Amino acid sequence: MMDNGLAAYIEVKGFQKIVIFTDENLLSLYPHFFDFIDNSKKEFIVLPRGEAAKTLAVYENVCMQLLEKNIGRKALIINWGGGSISDFGGFVASTYKRGCTMVNVPTTLLAMIDAAIGGKNALNVGGVKNAAGTFYLPDMVVTEPSFLKTLPQNEILNGFGELLKYALISNGELWEELKNSESVSAKGIRKEWIDFCQNYKESIVKRDFYDNGERHLLNFGHTVGHALESLFAPALSHGHAVALGCVIAAYISYNKNFISKKVFQEIHDFVRKHYSFLSLNDEQIDAILRLCRNDKKNDGGSLKFILLSKIGEAFETDVSEVELRAALGNVFG
Amino acid sequence: MMDNGLAAYIEVKGFQKIVIFTDENLLSLYPHFFDFIDNSKKEFIVLPRGEAAKTLAVYENVCMQLLEKNIGRKALIINWGGGSISDFGGFVASTYKRGCTMVNVPTTLLAMIDAAIGGKNALNVGGVKNAAGTFYLPDMVVTEPSFLKTLPQNEILNGFGELLKYALISNGELWEELKNSESVSAKGIRKEWIDFCQNYKESIVKRDFYDNGERHLLNFGHTVGHALESLFAPALSHGHAVALGCVIAAYISYNKNFISKKVFQEIHDFVRKHYSFLSLNDEQIDAILRLCRNDKKNDGGSLKFILLSKIGEAFETDVSEVELRAALGNVFG
Repeated sequence: MMDNGLAAYIEVKGFQKIVIFTDENLLSLYPHFFDFIDNSKKEFIVLPRGEAAKTLAVYENVCMQLLEKNIGRKALIINWGGGSISDFGGFVASTYKRGCTMVNVPTTLLAMIDAAIGGKNALNVGGVKNAAGTFYLPDMVVTEPSFLKTLPQNEILNGFGELLKYALISNGELWEELKNSESVSAKGIRKEWIDFCQNYKESIVKRDFYDNGERHLLNFGHTVGHALESLFAPALSHGHAVALGCVIAAYISYNKNFISKKVFQEIHDFVRKHYSFLSLNDEQIDAILRLCRNDKKNDGGSLKFILLSKIGEAFETDVSEVELRAALGNVFG
Repeated sequence: MMDNGLAAYIEVKGFQKIVIFTDENLLSLYPHFFDFIDNSKKEFIVLPRGEAAKTLAVYENVCMQLLEKNIGRKALIINWGGGSISDFGGFVASTYKRGCTMVNVPTTLLAMIDAAIGGKNALNVGGVKNAAGTFYLPDMVVTEPSFLKTLPQNEILNGFGELLKYALISNGELWEELKNSESVSAKGIRKEWIDFCQNYKESIVKRDFYDNGERHLLNFGHTVGHALESLFAPALSHGHAVALGCVIAAYISYNKNFISKKVFQEIHDFVRKHYSFLSLNDEQIDAILRLCRNDKKNDGGSLKFILLSKIGEAFETDVSEVELRAALGNVFG
């Protein structure tokens, strides 16, 4: 591992207790990653893998462990893992004794460019994804692209869907680079792409932390993406669903004359090359419309959508259910 | 009830859904208080009384009710009740769908001058009081002193302990008025006292929202108060414990030559007149010292205390365990 600044940060801040949330997989793959922290100062708390960590039962259990270990609010909490670890650990860090300092060390591509950045955390309640959460920023995000080497291919593709989203809404050059990549692999993910996505998200979050306006743009591909994810969970990963959602949003953008057919076709072909595509029947399309209607971004009836005005530029607008149904039918029919 | 501005606020903000957290007692005492809100817009959620509401089990149950009722993040949450309602409801409002707008309508003296002001909320975890919580401000606090008419005398005394604290740390005139009151009753609590305490707390909170410095001053009487509360719960109310804690803090202030014996004696006599006093044995004094040591304000070993430099002025300093033991022995021995 390169020097990522974490050791110096801990030294300067003088934390007496450091709690590290992670899962068994990471501990066995990288048993020495945190050797630079004194054993007397650190406590590993091993969480169930994936969404299974994000429950109130695990939250209660973990808070009780912290109380028993006499962890005070001046402790540092490190979230070492993928998005479910930073979702869960962010909620703990923001609420345990009304808030501890937090550092994220994302280990998946998806967490590096999305979940670990921007301060949203979440737990699931009664099976409803991300029903509870807060906005709480990490003090530092440590990015180690070398973690990607041990990431399974489906996890690379999971993050690649978000990478595609960033390219389409913010950066035509990144889109050109992605478009020309023959295949998606850990090796092919360039550090500069990760840096770009992190900086882009951070700059938006700085201007709209509580997600009342500009931050909505980051939901490009997500309205339909979330619906597909709910409908086909757990087979469809978040990034895969977002990639498919990007195709629908691109279709509507084309259909409303914001982008050309050629640009839509490029996006369509790109997603089709790297991801398995869907074929939806009428019932499934009805279900997707219902789910989009209930999406928490859509208070008040109309369907709020993020569309492309051109490659590298997005905007928020209303889309009718007729337009959405037509897009789903044309792309996945 | 007077016009408290809540109806106009709701009208102007145009909330489509309003969730009111309360308990059965208030609903039966004031069944028409929220008649001005359309039935189609409001949902009452009735919570267990007192600390019993502040558990993760109740939190999960309430979140699931909100999800079932399709409450979005643009709903208004009203916390109508005492401190446990605003503690619980504040945590829900700050975390449900990452945060809803919140209004507090405190109904106890303690909540009016303390719990409902300043944005701290809390749940208990594994029996540890206020182990989880956030900082989350209400959009509005509606103060209706007429609620005090139906408050039991022990609840008036509960709030009166906090009122005493405010007088001692911030306002010599208020202290003169309190000192001259023959008895404590709902009738005798003046609206101006409540207003003064709210404004004083709000001005401190504005300067130190996250409780890193000046806000500590509000803990006058609380270091020992919290210890007594833990030791003698549930017999000793929070305000009663704080009043006794104020006597100890005043004794140490006198013993360290910050205030005169006469001023200490006045505080002592005042608390003794209105509250039953304690007589502690050595074991109990040991237990109090242990509890003070574990108080979350005391990271790092030394006992942090708020003392009086004079009536109406407080400051934070270190107090040795020897000094604290002597104070407990002299006052409650």
